[in-house]
Amino acid sequence: MIARVVVVPRPQVADPQGITVARALAQLGFAEVRSVRVGKYLELELDGPPQDADRRIEEMCRKLLANPVIEDYHFSLEEATTQR
Amino acid sequence: MIARVVVVPRPQVADPQGITVARALAQLGFAEVRSVRVGKYLELELDGPPQDADRRIEEMCRKLLANPVIEDYHFSLEEATTQR
Repeated sequence: MIARVVVVPRPQVADPQGITVARALAQLGFAEVRSVRVGKYLELELDGPPQDADRRIEEMCRKLLANPVIEDYHFSLEEATTQR
Repeated sequence: MIARVVVVPRPQVADPQGITVARALAQLGFAEVRSVRVGKYLELELDGPPQDADRRIEEMCRKLLANPVIEDYHFSLEEATTQR
């Protein structure tokens, strides 16, 4: 299985990295950028039974990948196309 | 418009952050994790004509958001649902 996890700062949490990127884009002439939020993207390759993957990834997010106090997360699962 | 940009290290590029996360997950008992790649996720709120957005985001990725030598990127665009 391939799991794709996105972790973003919660809307009410300050995102200095996003503000910096937004400013840099404005300075480069991208005046249409109203705001930027910066988060993490993780791609996990998993062994094990596909029916457990959803629950296990949820657990990984809560325990390590995200900080639920200041971050939201979501993920998608995909059957790996190549067998190794 | 909302643009969602994902930037990941290219497959042949070392990803120490991914290795660290994979090890930490193993130590927490997630033995099914075979590998992890860590990238960036950016959510941009844009003004301006939707028909330009694709080209403009592509330009932002090449100029600032990604380093094409070591990173791949892809993005999706979505019409913003709320008018402000």
